[in-house]
Amino acid sequence: MYLTMNRFKVKLGEEAAFEEVWTKRDSHLRSVPGFKAFHLLKGPEKDGYRLYASHTAWESEAHFLDWTRSEAFREAHKGAGGHKELYLEPPELEVFETVQKLD
Amino acid sequence: MYLTMNRFKVKLGEEAAFEEVWTKRDSHLRSVPGFKAFHLLKGPEKDGYRLYASHTAWESEAHFLDWTRSEAFREAHKGAGGHKELYLEPPELEVFETVQKLD
Repeated sequence: MYLTMNRFKVKLGEEAAFEEVWTKRDSHLRSVPGFKAFHLLKGPEKDGYRLYASHTAWESEAHFLDWTRSEAFREAHKGAGGHKELYLEPPELEVFETVQKLD
Repeated sequence: MYLTMNRFKVKLGEEAAFEEVWTKRDSHLRSVPGFKAFHLLKGPEKDGYRLYASHTAWESEAHFLDWTRSEAFREAHKGAGGHKELYLEPPELEVFETVQKLD
């Protein structure tokens, strides 16, 4: 699994607004080559914020990189600078590769 | 998906030793009720360490909690305090629940 996770520090009290922005968006991920699955994840409450994460699995790093260079990516992120009032700070992207899998 | 992720800050130069400890262990997760899948993930290099994460998907929170109270859990973690020399600091557990899934 090649996994990209974006970590969002959502201000307390803004959780419902954040979830609405995400779940109402028009995602085109399903039509992207190499896309496997997307989860929007609700994490723990920490010091002054609620952690959320987007969690996107890809067939390979190459598929992810191709997507970041595509018109579909630009389209999906053209509003990404909006809703700043929901966040304590900008999101942080972390990329992971599987070392071992058990299932 | 109910997801538990443990984040490990592995000292630079200790990556191979860390991976060996994990991949050589005797995991009994496959026989645990409600267990779905485990990935050991290699993440980015950050300020003085390499981020790794264990990534375990469960059918529900109740299945995860039952496991933490089981003999199998105690058995799996009896050596968890070892290998401290590999880490910058203790691991941090984060638990996530799916808000939205696309696949």
